[in-house]
Amino acid sequence: MNNLLILIQCKDKVGLVTDITRILALHKLNIIAMREFVDETENKFFTRIACSGIITDKLVLKQELIAVLPIEAKVNLVTKKEKNIAVLVTKEFHCLADLLVRAHFKTLGAVVKCVIGNHSTLQEFAEKMGVPFFYVAHENKSKADFEREMVQLLINYELDYIVLAKFMRILSPEFIQQYPNKIINIHHSFLPAFVGASPYRQAFERGVKIIGATAHFVTNNLDEGPIINQQTIHVNHTLNAKQMAIGGREIEKAVLSKALEQVLEDRVFISGNKTIVFE
Amino acid sequence: MNNLLILIQCKDKVGLVTDITRILALHKLNIIAMREFVDETENKFFTRIACSGIITDKLVLKQELIAVLPIEAKVNLVTKKEKNIAVLVTKEFHCLADLLVRAHFKTLGAVVKCVIGNHSTLQEFAEKMGVPFFYVAHENKSKADFEREMVQLLINYELDYIVLAKFMRILSPEFIQQYPNKIINIHHSFLPAFVGASPYRQAFERGVKIIGATAHFVTNNLDEGPIINQQTIHVNHTLNAKQMAIGGREIEKAVLSKALEQVLEDRVFISGNKTIVFE
Amino acid sequence: MNNLLILIQCKDKVGLVTDITRILALHKLNIIAMREFVDETENKFFTRIACSGIITDKLVLKQELIAVLPIEAKVNLVTKKEKNIAVLVTKEFHCLADLLVRAHFKTLGAVVKCVIGNHSTLQEFAEKMGVPFFYVAHENKSKADFEREMVQLLINYELDYIVLAKFMRILSPEFIQQYPNKIINIHHSFLPAFVGASPYRQAFERGVKIIGATAHFVTNNLDEGPIINQQTIHVNHTLNAKQMAIGGREIEKAVLSKALEQVLEDRVFISGNKTIVFE
Amino acid sequence: MNNLLILIQCKDKVGLVTDITRILALHKLNIIAMREFVDETENKFFTRIACSGIITDKLVLKQELIAVLPIEAKVNLVTKKEKNIAVLVTKEFHCLADLLVRAHFKTLGAVVKCVIGNHSTLQEFAEKMGVPFFYVAHENKSKADFEREMVQLLINYELDYIVLAKFMRILSPEFIQQYPNKIINIHHSFLPAFVGASPYRQAFERGVKIIGATAHFVTNNLDEGPIINQQTIHVNHTLNAKQMAIGGREIEKAVLSKALEQVLEDRVFISGNKTIVFE
Repeated sequence: MNNLLILIQCKDKVGLVTDITRILALHKLNIIAMREFVDETENKFFTRIACSGIITDKLVLKQELIAVLPIEAKVNLVTKKEKNIAVLVTKEFHCLADLLVRAHFKTLGAVVKCVIGNHSTLQEFAEKMGVPFFYVAHENKSKADFEREMVQLLINYELDYIVLAKFMRILSPEFIQQYPNKIINIHHSFLPAFVGASPYRQAFERGVKIIGATAHFVTNNLDEGPIINQQTIHVNHTLNAKQMAIGGREIEKAVLSKALEQVLEDRVFISGNKTIVFE
Repeated sequence: MNNLLILIQCKDKVGLVTDITRILALHKLNIIAMREFVDETENKFFTRIACSGIITDKLVLKQELIAVLPIEAKVNLVTKKEKNIAVLVTKEFHCLADLLVRAHFKTLGAVVKCVIGNHSTLQEFAEKMGVPFFYVAHENKSKADFEREMVQLLINYELDYIVLAKFMRILSPEFIQQYPNKIINIHHSFLPAFVGASPYRQAFERGVKIIGATAHFVTNNLDEGPIINQQTIHVNHTLNAKQMAIGGREIEKAVLSKALEQVLEDRVFISGNKTIVFE
Repeated sequence: MNNLLILIQCKDKVGLVTDITRILALHKLNIIAMREFVDETENKFFTRIACSGIITDKLVLKQELIAVLPIEAKVNLVTKKEKNIAVLVTKEFHCLADLLVRAHFKTLGAVVKCVIGNHSTLQEFAEKMGVPFFYVAHENKSKADFEREMVQLLINYELDYIVLAKFMRILSPEFIQQYPNKIINIHHSFLPAFVGASPYRQAFERGVKIIGATAHFVTNNLDEGPIINQQTIHVNHTLNAKQMAIGGREIEKAVLSKALEQVLEDRVFISGNKTIVFE
Repeated sequence: MNNLLILIQCKDKVGLVTDITRILALHKLNIIAMREFVDETENKFFTRIACSGIITDKLVLKQELIAVLPIEAKVNLVTKKEKNIAVLVTKEFHCLADLLVRAHFKTLGAVVKCVIGNHSTLQEFAEKMGVPFFYVAHENKSKADFEREMVQLLINYELDYIVLAKFMRILSPEFIQQYPNKIINIHHSFLPAFVGASPYRQAFERGVKIIGATAHFVTNNLDEGPIINQQTIHVNHTLNAKQMAIGGREIEKAVLSKALEQVLEDRVFISGNKTIVFE
């Protein structure tokens, strides 16, 4: 008996659920949990089906599903295996530490294969946690060279996702295009407010009464990729920008780890510049 | 073209989703949104399917569904119609006013057929909003007589639900049994804490840092029926019991109106002493 | 025995609290609650002192306080009286109804002297609640004329605040300057995100996972005045722009009524483009 | 120039703020931030005053303050020094790891002098973080002996607080009385609901729609000490008791670290079975 996750994303048409579930029944797969969503604006269909049963031939099942689905359907059959991630950091510890502690105690749902830092600040901690840390300075070299160094490290691992855990360099489109839908960033504001540098400084100057954090996939446009998860907390006049940043750490790490959990459990579909998240 | 809501609650078995969706396909019903849940502890299956299509014979459809379901399945085919409710109150205005304002502007999802108060405090407001108000004093009579008076008013309406909107009398099992799974109460604490009288007084004396509200179905056991919705808000040492009660109004009315929305949209299943709420 | 609220806003200097409290002691005023804040960036001092005692001569007390404070100090001695507000609306009922219900049951902390609508949609409700409603259409006239009509109505009341309760017209600087720090708006987004028109449409298109509301004082720059209160709630992919707008109503009215409560209790100081809110 | 924190707790009387601030002025201490609270029910006064200045003689200042205060006033003059804590654990890692990571990166506001576990599960992690771990098994010995072993370890450190970070043994009154107002526990429910063992099991069985966590001082009565901080999060029917426990970890560690921050910054006063928390 295996567990199988079936992820389908295609144009919508009448009868999709029936067609899909009929095929599963023929394969004697039992549906444990099923979520579906129709985006009526875009006429798109999404489903995530967890089933159990004896899966003799995944390829046959996939072909049978594709046969009843509209053309250009994306069908993904996932049998549970631990995913691999790399984490990029600068100096701030809180997001990285949160991920490494979870990984250490086997509750992250992924193995952290390596950490790359453009400062060496977090090297000691990563190594204490038993994770290889590579210090790749960004100084005195071109962005292209900086990124090439990172890529040469990253290609050593079969990575499912790259997590920017308060990595304070802007990645080039060339880098990003090598990892489509695979780079997840935590931005320290409730996007689309306060894009770019120093969001807490901007928040302080605007006099907002909430601060927040946003986890999103990284695309070519800075801070404009598909949002996975966001949260806000209340602040007041007594906090300056630095104190907001300290308070914001708590929500940054909470939002990042929640988003990562959702992604690693294959609950997140990307559709244009949005996400569908089956909770 | 009609919209049909199919609500099914039964013992779980392999292939239920497939069997159900196959029947819908045969009737050329298109699934717009489908939610299902398997309670593994109780081995129960629940589904809420919104579909569209030309429904020629609801009875035939229902019988075909029952034929493929385990015995004692509850199948409910709902074609949208506005539901009817009655509201029982005492003196506090906030929950009643919230419901009547929504009803007045046609956003409640139900018609408030009447309000019954054991005080006349809210009569003027209810009548301003165009809703009949009946003053049924509880004083100088037995509980049985008090409740009989109310029942004689309530039987004049085809009621789907009776809402206790800060109704401060305890109803007898005899009354409650006449309306199984139909009475919804708002309790002014985060149950199971602070059952019974004066929850804000109890909260103040315990020195809690949160207060809350709970909307639940009413069963024979006071404040122990299936919970539909709960929320809490932060409080601090500066609030006394009366100030907590004032602050608590906001959350009481929010929780009640949210729970009522969920119930009126047929998103809530009762299972033993719990609810399944498809959001 | 009276209650007196002392509000002071001035440049900071050493010993202010001591100097102020010494004067209060000389007048035999007992401090019930005191809040103070020093904005170190701006070198400003703010205090709100609630005291009780027999106040024989407010003017003398004020002069004595001014004598020990830095020049240009703002000193405000408030003896409790109910404040007066006017409410400007368009078509949406939820914020107005929330305010009028509170006013009706004497829990708003202000009298609503009149409602002005640029549509007549809410006239019936306002009048049911016993509040004069003036329909001032904006069509077929210049903005100057439209606003002049409103001003001619508003000058009939000694207004403390004008509340824009989903009033969907942009007011001119000329209008706003007549009511400095007196106009409070509810904007249906978490500012500074989604300024201007159709914030829910913008939120939907961006694919955010939270929506929000912001109550702020109105200045010449649209949606850029000092923020009083903000909140967000979670949304997901299943909601379209219209459904976000419906869900957003709950938070809009909650944020507006909370902000108004804070303002009406004289808990809010304006400092530049920010607020200090003593909760 | 030093920073001094003045903490006063006494019976209330007219003029306390004036008397206190006058003394501070005589000592040329500048008030940076001041919070005060009068508990009218208990007729008690509390204040926390942060000041700066040259403090020549703390003892004289303290005596002068006591001289103007009602008898039995508690006056505490705190000059900033890092506090020392010990942490007691069983098997769960999340609260301990959160504290040790903060301590490692110098953001906890305290030094963790040692960790004691009644299981050895967390020894490796504590030692990686450079903190001594003592394994004190509770098995095959009396509670008195078990606690005596712990006390013999704890007495080696000048501890300000002992933190029970998911320590699953009930401490005896004898142990607790040795550390009055010094033991802080995180309980995995929103107290007073679900006291005692297996709160998530209780929550699951009751069918609540929220779960929570409570940080409190430990007194003789299990789970009944003064509450410092509480929070709740939403849950739904899809979670079983075990999944609630996993989700609850996030809020447990957040509540514990927030409460500890408040305690370590001397923002928390204990009054009877309640706390005053100046945020």
